[in-house]
Amino acid sequence: MGIHRYFKSLSDLENLFRCPGKFKYQDHSVAAHSFKVTKIAQFLGTVEQMEGETVDWKILYEKALNHDYAELFTGDIKTPVKYASSELKGLFSQVEQQLTQKFIREEFPTEFREVYIERFKEGKDDTLEGKILSVADKIDLLYESFGEIQKGNPEPLFLEIYEEALMTIILFKEMKSVQYFLNDILPDLLQEKFIPHDQLSQMTQNILSQKDEQGQ
Amino acid sequence: MGIHRYFKSLSDLENLFRCPGKFKYQDHSVAAHSFKVTKIAQFLGTVEQMEGETVDWKILYEKALNHDYAELFTGDIKTPVKYASSELKGLFSQVEQQLTQKFIREEFPTEFREVYIERFKEGKDDTLEGKILSVADKIDLLYESFGEIQKGNPEPLFLEIYEEALMTIILFKEMKSVQYFLNDILPDLLQEKFIPHDQLSQMTQNILSQKDEQGQ
Amino acid sequence: MGIHRYFKSLSDLENLFRCPGKFKYQDHSVAAHSFKVTKIAQFLGTVEQMEGETVDWKILYEKALNHDYAELFTGDIKTPVKYASSELKGLFSQVEQQLTQKFIREEFPTEFREVYIERFKEGKDDTLEGKILSVADKIDLLYESFGEIQKGNPEPLFLEIYEEALMTIILFKEMKSVQYFLNDILPDLLQEKFIPHDQLSQMTQNILSQKDEQGQ
Amino acid sequence: MGIHRYFKSLSDLENLFRCPGKFKYQDHSVAAHSFKVTKIAQFLGTVEQMEGETVDWKILYEKALNHDYAELFTGDIKTPVKYASSELKGLFSQVEQQLTQKFIREEFPTEFREVYIERFKEGKDDTLEGKILSVADKIDLLYESFGEIQKGNPEPLFLEIYEEALMTIILFKEMKSVQYFLNDILPDLLQEKFIPHDQLSQMTQNILSQKDEQGQ
Amino acid sequence: MGIHRYFKSLSDLENLFRCPGKFKYQDHSVAAHSFKVTKIAQFLGTVEQMEGETVDWKILYEKALNHDYAELFTGDIKTPVKYASSELKGLFSQVEQQLTQKFIREEFPTEFREVYIERFKEGKDDTLEGKILSVADKIDLLYESFGEIQKGNPEPLFLEIYEEALMTIILFKEMKSVQYFLNDILPDLLQEKFIPHDQLSQMTQNILSQKDEQGQ
Amino acid sequence: MGIHRYFKSLSDLENLFRCPGKFKYQDHSVAAHSFKVTKIAQFLGTVEQMEGETVDWKILYEKALNHDYAELFTGDIKTPVKYASSELKGLFSQVEQQLTQKFIREEFPTEFREVYIERFKEGKDDTLEGKILSVADKIDLLYESFGEIQKGNPEPLFLEIYEEALMTIILFKEMKSVQYFLNDILPDLLQEKFIPHDQLSQMTQNILSQKDEQGQ
Repeated sequence: MGIHRYFKSLSDLENLFRCPGKFKYQDHSVAAHSFKVTKIAQFLGTVEQMEGETVDWKILYEKALNHDYAELFTGDIKTPVKYASSELKGLFSQVEQQLTQKFIREEFPTEFREVYIERFKEGKDDTLEGKILSVADKIDLLYESFGEIQKGNPEPLFLEIYEEALMTIILFKEMKSVQYFLNDILPDLLQEKFIPHDQLSQMTQNILSQKDEQGQ
Repeated sequence: MGIHRYFKSLSDLENLFRCPGKFKYQDHSVAAHSFKVTKIAQFLGTVEQMEGETVDWKILYEKALNHDYAELFTGDIKTPVKYASSELKGLFSQVEQQLTQKFIREEFPTEFREVYIERFKEGKDDTLEGKILSVADKIDLLYESFGEIQKGNPEPLFLEIYEEALMTIILFKEMKSVQYFLNDILPDLLQEKFIPHDQLSQMTQNILSQKDEQGQ
Repeated sequence: MGIHRYFKSLSDLENLFRCPGKFKYQDHSVAAHSFKVTKIAQFLGTVEQMEGETVDWKILYEKALNHDYAELFTGDIKTPVKYASSELKGLFSQVEQQLTQKFIREEFPTEFREVYIERFKEGKDDTLEGKILSVADKIDLLYESFGEIQKGNPEPLFLEIYEEALMTIILFKEMKSVQYFLNDILPDLLQEKFIPHDQLSQMTQNILSQKDEQGQ
Repeated sequence: MGIHRYFKSLSDLENLFRCPGKFKYQDHSVAAHSFKVTKIAQFLGTVEQMEGETVDWKILYEKALNHDYAELFTGDIKTPVKYASSELKGLFSQVEQQLTQKFIREEFPTEFREVYIERFKEGKDDTLEGKILSVADKIDLLYESFGEIQKGNPEPLFLEIYEEALMTIILFKEMKSVQYFLNDILPDLLQEKFIPHDQLSQMTQNILSQKDEQGQ
Repeated sequence: MGIHRYFKSLSDLENLFRCPGKFKYQDHSVAAHSFKVTKIAQFLGTVEQMEGETVDWKILYEKALNHDYAELFTGDIKTPVKYASSELKGLFSQVEQQLTQKFIREEFPTEFREVYIERFKEGKDDTLEGKILSVADKIDLLYESFGEIQKGNPEPLFLEIYEEALMTIILFKEMKSVQYFLNDILPDLLQEKFIPHDQLSQMTQNILSQKDEQGQ
Repeated sequence: MGIHRYFKSLSDLENLFRCPGKFKYQDHSVAAHSFKVTKIAQFLGTVEQMEGETVDWKILYEKALNHDYAELFTGDIKTPVKYASSELKGLFSQVEQQLTQKFIREEFPTEFREVYIERFKEGKDDTLEGKILSVADKIDLLYESFGEIQKGNPEPLFLEIYEEALMTIILFKEMKSVQYFLNDILPDLLQEKFIPHDQLSQMTQNILSQKDEQGQ
């Protein structure tokens, strides 16, 4: 028992990879994903605050940092399984909660238990912070799938993930930070180019001919 | 729809790794595991047949080859989750079966469906072939965990897995092939040595001194 | 000596990678390849049986499972070397057989030797099962090379491998299972698309505009 | 220009590995390290607060999340280089700051610049939050080096890193959270065992003999 | 102290990867890069000699083999950092030299020190051998970046690296070996094709129809 | 045809890994091995020269750099195969030579052919340079196998490789550079320690108690 085991478990999140069972050019660990989601949530919160909303930063960071910690106990369960029946989904959430609480009881000294039970709860609720987490989680997923598509991954799943992520983000389009994402960030993402082979030849010719002229 | 998608899915099993979320010196894909289990089952079946049992080889190979195919649809769910409640376990098995049947209906032409529904069923039943599969699955798991322990993996989980695998194998100890494993194979596994550092120094000295004598 | 060393050797096949010395997006171990070939052979055998042929399943599975086991002793020798001279090829086959038999003599107890000498023999003979193995081996090779081509591997070797695999499969085109592959599976493989960048932009626009309308 | 490039840069931190140029059993990316440091800082802050200190959580999370972001611009420079001369160290800090500010000016719209210049500043100052960051950073480093030592890494560097990390932590021993670490967490870390080979044999014998008795 | 530590350090160069912090399809270690640069320098030297120049081969090989050895002590520092100010660049070179000399003093017995201080000096001077090294280093960099572009890496950095490498090579265009590279090697590199998906379909059709005719 | 394909082939040597089919903690490419052998040969040559021998450096570097280039055409053939019969060994050498010459004829313009046929010849002859190559090749092999043993690789093969490498080096013990290796380098290698777990506890206690005293 002890916080030592909690600290050690953080490294297990570096060994848990997202979207298993599919060829990917680049793997993403749950640890790295949690980092990116927290950074994205930080930015979204900043936009909300600038637009006059009150952000509870302590809560926002806690939600973002811990939102996938329970995967340590449950492993990666494919979405279609989880949602195959609402009965299963309900039971599954229950089990997830039980396993997390069991871990806290076994590893955390009494004085920390209440705080951590709160921190490891499902964070995606209807508060501003819960909604920012929902959006930040999907923005990172959208970037992950876009990364595969842009690198040439022929697996249609990544287009489906991109689509699903975007559709979820849009559900929150009344939020100022989501409007910012859709209007100011997404267009730049779509501007990203593949490096065309033709461009390479052209650039090489340009360099060679420029230098030729200078050489004369 | 089509057998093409079934053939392609075989390669996804090369991207599904066993025991995620833990540091391992050597990863094992579900594809490679299925190969090893089938080879081990082949050996166990050979022992049973030599001892006078009748082995239905077609059935045995089908069970061994396909025993983890459903992980393609469900992903890797940690054992404690699956068995957290018998209710969840029951529901989970149901969902697993539904997803597999859905895949067969969507991808397999009518004439193949019945055959493949049969092949993708849970194979660990009470027939001789079902029991051989149960044992072969655990023998490979025992070798995987032994490999980590022998390489110096400090994670206690691998000792637990080794223990659990061995205890399950022993449940089948009335089988001739299990007796062969316990009496003729397991002792050799336990004889395996770490390469001691001392031995290296000693050997080096021996080679050097031998050569010295020859050189005189 | 012992079956323990045979079981342990199965894991070495997980460390032996096909087509060394070339950049590949996805590696394939000999263990995973053997699994896929056995699964493909299972399907081809099913077609043959449906078409009225008699399949000896025990033999078919043995051939498929063990067809590359000897690579454990010989390593990966590039095809041009093996076929550089028919004299070398003959000698090489001889040596391969000798090394395999030596392993069996050293590791297998007497009672298993005959069975395993038979199992580790070259399986690609003129029987129905031998021909199914030849075809299944090339279908997996075709999928492996197609996987590289589809992911954008610029190495022309993979186009050559694809071509050679397809030409070998066609040599067996009198077989019902090969006709099924050529008529019902290969066309779907060729339908596979790269995910076009344009499609991504288009889809994003569609989602955005739909949501806009709903939002009004 | 744009936040899109900032979001994309987060994934580059997944490709930046700590302690390059040394054999490691397990790699750690700057992204995963940042996640772990933030989680550890969260715990240390919790202890401080319980002991009556006032923690500015917003500041603490900002410091922890962003503390290595500048490595994106500078790459990994080995410590002995950085500290070879105080003149170099001074110049280097200056350059680091310039490059970070250049990135902010080029990529962040005007309204976000001030906030992010503040967030990307060196966080290890003399405030409580700055000191928690210093300690959390070293605790993760200590765990990383301990992980290598425990897995059997013969490189003496990891013992040196462990030592240096511990000595730095002790510099802050007047802090309640550091006392908690030294008294309640570190002893458990040192209790961690290698899995001894002898224990494996013993356990196997125990299982076998127990089952034997039950079988009678 | 000792040559043993020098020999061991060579393996550290296998763990030092070029261009960290960016997604790459293929990683290149400093050890492999040094090998390739030496082989390319060998070829360029051969051209120079054929054209009547006198090549000091001993010097050329020493320069090429050792040109990145100092990265062992300094790690990978991103180019923009190094060149951010000429003052920093000067200091940095000084530190690099000091660290290298410190290593030689600590590890090399007296009799070897002078030779190795000479060998580990910056090799890119104005001698023929120094210029061949400069060109060979950039040719390998050009091939590395071309490899990423050709495999579909969407990161614009690789196009910039390709461009910078080519522009540096052209600075030496008065050299016969550079003219050979520009006229006889680069055009072949630019001829390299992506494998088009269309070509695959076409080839498949051709094989199928040929075989059909033969089958009649 | 062209030198471009020769340059490109250098990168294939980065994808060719030594000792395939065995679990290894650290992989070594043929490219990195060639680099290390050349560096070791450089040192051995330096010792020979200091002891009054005349070293033909151009020849020595050519032999070391190119000594495994032919593996590009033949792949990795396990030693027991190559030496299974002297007849096979003879034939194999012939084929290796033929494939190398075929590559040179196809890729190298006429003016370079003679030089490269010479460079790609078997380099381990009875000249001083040939003997240095033989020794350097085995020293790197000895370091590679020692690296696995020291990291805890339980595979006995690495002890056998270490032994065979050392025995071959000793065959050349009349050479001054070999005497230097045996007397001045090998003892330091054998002094290398595993990091003992006890030492870690001890050191931690020492640090803690020192600091305690200082704190008082």
